[in-house]
Amino acid sequence: MNKLENLVSLCKRRGFIFPGSDIYGGMSGTWDFGPLGVSLKKKLMDEWWRYFVDNRDDMYGVDAAIIMNPTTWVASGHTATFADPLVECKECKSRFRADKIADGISESVTTEEFLATHTKCPVCGKENWGPIRKFNMMFSTHVGAVLPEDTNENPEFVEKNIAYLRPETAQGIFTNYKNILDTIYPTIPFGIAQQGKAFRNEISPRDFILRDRECSQMEIEYFVHPDTWEKNFEKLRILQHDFLENIIGLSAENIHELEVPAEDRAHYSRRTIDFMFDYPNGEEELMGLAYRTDFDLSNIERASGKSMVYRDKNTGESFIPHVIEPSIGVERLFLAVLTNAYTEDEINGEKRTVLKLPENLAPFKFCVSPLLKNKPELVEKAQEAYKNLKTKYINVTWDDSGNIGKRYRKQDEIGTPKCVVIDFETLENNTVTVRDRDTTKQIRLKIEDL
Amino acid sequence: MNKLENLVSLCKRRGFIFPGSDIYGGMSGTWDFGPLGVSLKKKLMDEWWRYFVDNRDDMYGVDAAIIMNPTTWVASGHTATFADPLVECKECKSRFRADKIADGISESVTTEEFLATHTKCPVCGKENWGPIRKFNMMFSTHVGAVLPEDTNENPEFVEKNIAYLRPETAQGIFTNYKNILDTIYPTIPFGIAQQGKAFRNEISPRDFILRDRECSQMEIEYFVHPDTWEKNFEKLRILQHDFLENIIGLSAENIHELEVPAEDRAHYSRRTIDFMFDYPNGEEELMGLAYRTDFDLSNIERASGKSMVYRDKNTGESFIPHVIEPSIGVERLFLAVLTNAYTEDEINGEKRTVLKLPENLAPFKFCVSPLLKNKPELVEKAQEAYKNLKTKYINVTWDDSGNIGKRYRKQDEIGTPKCVVIDFETLENNTVTVRDRDTTKQIRLKIEDL
Repeated sequence: MNKLENLVSLCKRRGFIFPGSDIYGGMSGTWDFGPLGVSLKKKLMDEWWRYFVDNRDDMYGVDAAIIMNPTTWVASGHTATFADPLVECKECKSRFRADKIADGISESVTTEEFLATHTKCPVCGKENWGPIRKFNMMFSTHVGAVLPEDTNENPEFVEKNIAYLRPETAQGIFTNYKNILDTIYPTIPFGIAQQGKAFRNEISPRDFILRDRECSQMEIEYFVHPDTWEKNFEKLRILQHDFLENIIGLSAENIHELEVPAEDRAHYSRRTIDFMFDYPNGEEELMGLAYRTDFDLSNIERASGKSMVYRDKNTGESFIPHVIEPSIGVERLFLAVLTNAYTEDEINGEKRTVLKLPENLAPFKFCVSPLLKNKPELVEKAQEAYKNLKTKYINVTWDDSGNIGKRYRKQDEIGTPKCVVIDFETLENNTVTVRDRDTTKQIRLKIEDL
Repeated sequence: MNKLENLVSLCKRRGFIFPGSDIYGGMSGTWDFGPLGVSLKKKLMDEWWRYFVDNRDDMYGVDAAIIMNPTTWVASGHTATFADPLVECKECKSRFRADKIADGISESVTTEEFLATHTKCPVCGKENWGPIRKFNMMFSTHVGAVLPEDTNENPEFVEKNIAYLRPETAQGIFTNYKNILDTIYPTIPFGIAQQGKAFRNEISPRDFILRDRECSQMEIEYFVHPDTWEKNFEKLRILQHDFLENIIGLSAENIHELEVPAEDRAHYSRRTIDFMFDYPNGEEELMGLAYRTDFDLSNIERASGKSMVYRDKNTGESFIPHVIEPSIGVERLFLAVLTNAYTEDEINGEKRTVLKLPENLAPFKFCVSPLLKNKPELVEKAQEAYKNLKTKYINVTWDDSGNIGKRYRKQDEIGTPKCVVIDFETLENNTVTVRDRDTTKQIRLKIEDL
C-alpha cells in the first residue's frame, strides 16, 4: 500500500472521512466527515478565519447563498467557459474527459487532435469516438414551481428558472462588494473573505478528497489601487506562507511556488502563483494566488448597470479597484495536513502509525484513562481528572477500552498529543503518567500541573 | 413600520443580512450574510456545537455531503411525500401554493376542496384554476456527464443520474449511523450531530429569513433504547431550554411549547413538541423536538440491506435504536436573537435603536475610539489600547468616524456592549471612558482594568 491508501484507510477506520452515501453504495465524488474529521476541518477553518479575518483590520467576512442569480455566471464567464472536453465511446456509450484519457493533449483539445492520438476506450477497448463536446461543470437546478412535465410542455419556462450551484465562493464576494462599500465604508486596500461550499460536476472525480464534486473553499478578494497590485500581491504571498507554515504547521520544504506562465493562466489573471504541495501521490495544487485585475468588478458593472467605482476620501481619486485573490480548498488543506502528520515509525521493535498533528489542530489535546477499567477507585479518580481537563481544554477524550498499549496505539493514530493515565500511585500522591505522542516518553506530573 | 421591517432595514443598513444576489435584482428566497451577520451566525453555530457536542461525552459530530445518493430520499419518504399543493391560474399562468392563497385548507387539499373556496388569483383576479398538483420541494440536479441534449436524446440516462440537494441534514446523520457504530463504538444513549446547509424549493419564500430556500440546520439524532424514549425526550427537552435561554439568552417568556396533536404530526413521529417563538409578526416555529421511533433506521435497513442493529455489550440485547431529534434552523435562531435584542428607547429625549445582544453573541465586545480624530496623540494612544484589547478579546472594533455621539448610535445599533474612548485625561492618568450599551452610563477605568 502506498501512503495515500494508508491515509484513506486510516481516515475511514478512525472516523475522519467516510465515502459519501456509503450505506447506499456511495455517491461518486462526495465524502462525509466523521467525528474526528469534523473536528479537524472545523479547526482548519477557524484558524483561517481567525488569522485572515478576525485578527486583521482590513478584512470583512461574508457568507453568501450557494444558489445565486444566474446572471452571476454569465458575467463571470462560467456559463461560456467553465467546461471540460467530453468524449463518448460510440461502442459502449461510456463518457470520458478527453484530456484525461489521452496523453499530451490539453483542455482545449479539438476532435481532430483527439482522434489523432488513437486512444482506446478504457472500458470496452474499442476506438470509435464521437466528437469532443464541451461539458459545463456547473450543477444546474430549477428554482421555483417548475414541474417535471414542464420539460416537455413549457421548455421556455424551465429555461427561465434555471439556476446553478456556485462553482466557487469568489463570485459571492464580488457580488457583495458594493454592499460592503455602502455599509462598512472600508478604506482601500481591504479584503472580503468567505468560507463555504462550492460544487463542480467533475466528469471523473478522483484522488480521494483532492478532486471531489463538493468542496469547501476559503477565498479572499483583496481590493487594491491598480498601481499597488505588486506590493499587495507580495504582502499576501507572505501571509499565505506564514499561515500554512506557522499556523497550520506544514513543512515549508513541501510547499513549492509555481509561477504560472502566461499561456496557462486563467484568462482574467495577469499573474498567478500556484502553491504546490508534496501530496502522497506527487505535487498537486494546494492553493492559488491570482492577480485578477478589475476583470470581475468591471464585468459586474456591465452586467448590473451599477457603478463599482471606489472613491478615495483622501486623494479624491475614483477608480475600479483591482483584485488579488488567495484561494484555498479546505479538503486540499485537510489532506496536506494529514500527509504532513502521517508517520510510520518503530518503538521498541514494534511498528506504529502516528499522526503528528500540531496541538492546535489535533481533535483531542488530551486522552485520560484509568490504568485498569475494573478498579472503581481508579475510574473515579480518572473521571475527576477528565472532567477538570475538559472544563479547561474542552477537546479532551476518555478511553478505557482494551489495555493501555492499545489505547496508546489508537491515540497515536488519531493524533492526540498527550495521554494521561491514572494509576495506583495517583491515589497515593496525586501524580499521573503523561505520555508524549511523538517521543512516546512518559513523565510523572502532579495533576494540578497538567 | 413594524418591528420586522425595522429589523430587515437594520440588517441591511448595518451589514448583517443582504438580499441574495441583490446586485442582479435578487434571487428569491436567498439571503447573504454581511460582515456582522457572519459574525453572529458563526457565534450561534459555535455555541451550539460547544454545548451539544464538544462539552458532552455522548455526542459525535458529522459533516456529510449535500448531494447524497438518491436512494436516501426514497427510503426517507421525501421522494413520495415532500411536496406542496401547487395550483396554476389558467388565465395568467401564475402558480401558487394552494394552501397559502385559500383560507382554511390544509397541505393535503384536493382540487375539489380548493375550487369550493372560490379563491381569486392574487395576480390577475380571475377565478379559473387548473387542478391541484403535488410539487416536490427538493431541488434536483444531475451528477456526472449529462449534457443538455440528453434531455431529448437519452431521457433514461438523464433520469438515472438525477440527484437532489438535501432538504434536511438529518438523513446525512442516519446514513452515517453505521459508520459511527463501526469506528467509535459508542454506548447507547448517544447522539450524532450535524450543522450544514439544507435546501427547500419553496413555491413562495416569505417572512425574511424565516422561510427561505437555502438555510443552515443544526440537528441531532439521539439514539436510545426503545423503552427509554420518554426519559430521553424529557432530558433533551430540558437541554433545549437551557441552551436557548441560558446560552443564547432568549427570554423564556417568548418561547412556547406546542404539543403537536397526532393528526398534525409527521407520519414518522409519535410525539413532537414545536418550540414556538414570539417573532415580530407573531408566533412561529423556532425549533422542533420529535420522537421518530425507529422509522429512519428501519427504512435504511430495508433500502440498504445492511443491519442497523445495535448490540448492548452489558445486557447482550440487540435492537434497532429509537431516535429523538432536536432540530433547529440557524436563520430562525438568528431572527429570534435579533427580535429578542431589538429595542427602541429614549435617552435624554433622543430616540435610539439598540441591539441588546448577549456579550457572547455580539459581533464586537468592545469599540475603541479616540475622542478626536485629528489629535495624533489621542489616535496613537487609542490604537495602542485597541491593539491590546484585540489581542485579548479578538472581537474588538475601531471607530473614529463622525463624532462620539454618532459612534455610540452606531455601536448601539450593532450591539457592541462597551465603547472605550481615549481622551485628554487618558494621556494624563491612563484612564478611559467606558460607556455601557444598555444603560448608556459612562465610567472611568484604568486601561489595565478593562
